[in-house]
Amino acid sequence: MNPSPERSHDTIRAVLWRGDRLRLLDQRLLPREETYVDCRTSDEVAQAIRDLVVRGAPAIGIAAAWGVVLAARQDRAGLAAALARLRAARPTAVNLMWALDRMQRVAARGADADALAAEAQAIQDEDLAANRRMGELGAALIAPGSGVLTHCNTGSLATAGFGTALGVIRAGVSAERIARVFAGETRPWLQGARLTVWELLRDAIPATLVADAAAAHLMSTGQVQWVVVGADRIAANGDTANKIGTYQLAIAARHHGVKFMVVAPSSTVDMATASGRDIEIELRSPDELFGYAGQRTVVEGASAWNPVFDVTPAALIDAIVTERGVVERPDTARMAAVFGAA
Amino acid sequence: MNPSPERSHDTIRAVLWRGDRLRLLDQRLLPREETYVDCRTSDEVAQAIRDLVVRGAPAIGIAAAWGVVLAARQDRAGLAAALARLRAARPTAVNLMWALDRMQRVAARGADADALAAEAQAIQDEDLAANRRMGELGAALIAPGSGVLTHCNTGSLATAGFGTALGVIRAGVSAERIARVFAGETRPWLQGARLTVWELLRDAIPATLVADAAAAHLMSTGQVQWVVVGADRIAANGDTANKIGTYQLAIAARHHGVKFMVVAPSSTVDMATASGRDIEIELRSPDELFGYAGQRTVVEGASAWNPVFDVTPAALIDAIVTERGVVERPDTARMAAVFGAA
Repeated sequence: MNPSPERSHDTIRAVLWRGDRLRLLDQRLLPREETYVDCRTSDEVAQAIRDLVVRGAPAIGIAAAWGVVLAARQDRAGLAAALARLRAARPTAVNLMWALDRMQRVAARGADADALAAEAQAIQDEDLAANRRMGELGAALIAPGSGVLTHCNTGSLATAGFGTALGVIRAGVSAERIARVFAGETRPWLQGARLTVWELLRDAIPATLVADAAAAHLMSTGQVQWVVVGADRIAANGDTANKIGTYQLAIAARHHGVKFMVVAPSSTVDMATASGRDIEIELRSPDELFGYAGQRTVVEGASAWNPVFDVTPAALIDAIVTERGVVERPDTARMAAVFGAA
Repeated sequence: MNPSPERSHDTIRAVLWRGDRLRLLDQRLLPREETYVDCRTSDEVAQAIRDLVVRGAPAIGIAAAWGVVLAARQDRAGLAAALARLRAARPTAVNLMWALDRMQRVAARGADADALAAEAQAIQDEDLAANRRMGELGAALIAPGSGVLTHCNTGSLATAGFGTALGVIRAGVSAERIARVFAGETRPWLQGARLTVWELLRDAIPATLVADAAAAHLMSTGQVQWVVVGADRIAANGDTANKIGTYQLAIAARHHGVKFMVVAPSSTVDMATASGRDIEIELRSPDELFGYAGQRTVVEGASAWNPVFDVTPAALIDAIVTERGVVERPDTARMAAVFGAA
């Protein structure tokens, strides 16, 4: 595959404001189909977040901000209720709450829909700028010639563009620090297999897909020096909630002396949450484990447990990279030094 | 689901000799279809092993033994070549080599096809007896009220019946020692999701399916006291090759103080292999990671790395259970005490 210049990552727009509606790239159908869903009401945005049309903590926050703009245009009196419904769409990623808090503060000042749209656009633009900055900061930690393993999708599809962990990988490959990229499949939604491999191939970055369960064996071969992942919520002590499987990677990384990096904008840091024990982990339907694309793989009558996030303790994390700076060997004091007290 | 008595595990026959042909339950199609493949030549048996119609280390050995019977009936002069082709069908599981060695010794004594059939039947019968014995020995190690997590499929489908790790789980549930069973999906072939959940439901043993990547998070909740897995080859020092992901489970188990048990017949022990470093790990086609249940999920042009086994060092194993006895905290000396020197 030779990606043409117009297919570079800059053309991926997972969340795009179209003046009167929010256009979302339907991530459930990639890479088979590039289909867009237009949301004309804030409730349609909330539903799209719940249904994983849009996913990735920063992208969820941006989509929700535009949902507030739609709510303000529809019915200003219903704004508070619309905000509450958006807030309830998914529980774990704090970027959703952060973006809604920010929009709510602007609305509380009596801003009109245009001013709210300017705020949503600022959230989106700042996210892209943060990602580029994190890319530089994170890549600088990686020794030339390294191999990295990532999990889930943290690229343009999950953010305003460029990506968090995938931004570090893009920057690290450009700077010739990263020589090999491995992507875990990320069951049950296969974000790694479907989305990360697709994004990286568009950028002509060769990535090697591995089963989630192959990560420790891969580490034992010496091909990986860093695990680089995103985050859905980072507590005040550095404990990090991220896609299910992240914790397992962190344990395996420590066992092998592989370094572990979390990359997320400061909007993912929740200084009001003391530790990972206080983070709500979203449980989704067992059906997500019973089949895929309409193919049932598990016998009727089966049970499943489907937590879609887990918490990696700060003690297993070597660096948290944000646009405000890097926290190495995170703990409450080092986090407070960058992000202030709660 | 209320399994009727005739649907108990005793009726599952993955490998069944029919007098002139070997009937294999096609495990690629379960649980959607119960379809049987009849092999009338040893080369058809070799192909079925390669293509995963039959899988599971003991079942592969049994099928190969019957393949030798078919070869002897076809063309006695071609027996050596047929044995070589069976031997090459899959590289990691040593039960294949063990069963073929045993058949070859009988053939070398000039045995006719009937005597070879008697030997193949003995291999099959002994495997079932070994599984029942291992079930008792393994279950005795588990404290009442425990939760267990297993990986891949090690039940009647993978053996002559009852199972290795799944035999311990069956015995442990019967003895009211095991209160909760979790099964990992086991990408890429989903043996856990497709086969283990199906087998256990037929026995009215409720199992909860989890994503492979959810295992460490599950352990952190305190619901699991033992990981119980099978093996494809156990080296003289206790290092154990098993389905990809086993090593990751062992690392996570040790991190959480969860015990780790390997269950396999003595035919899986390879005292001629000093350590796991000497075990060949089968790499299979990347195509196995490019789809899910027949649906292509990964963009064209992608790369994948698909090792289907890994090696768990003996140091991470609390007990190796065989029909000859239990080796706790295995090392070369403790293994030799049960299995003799190489």
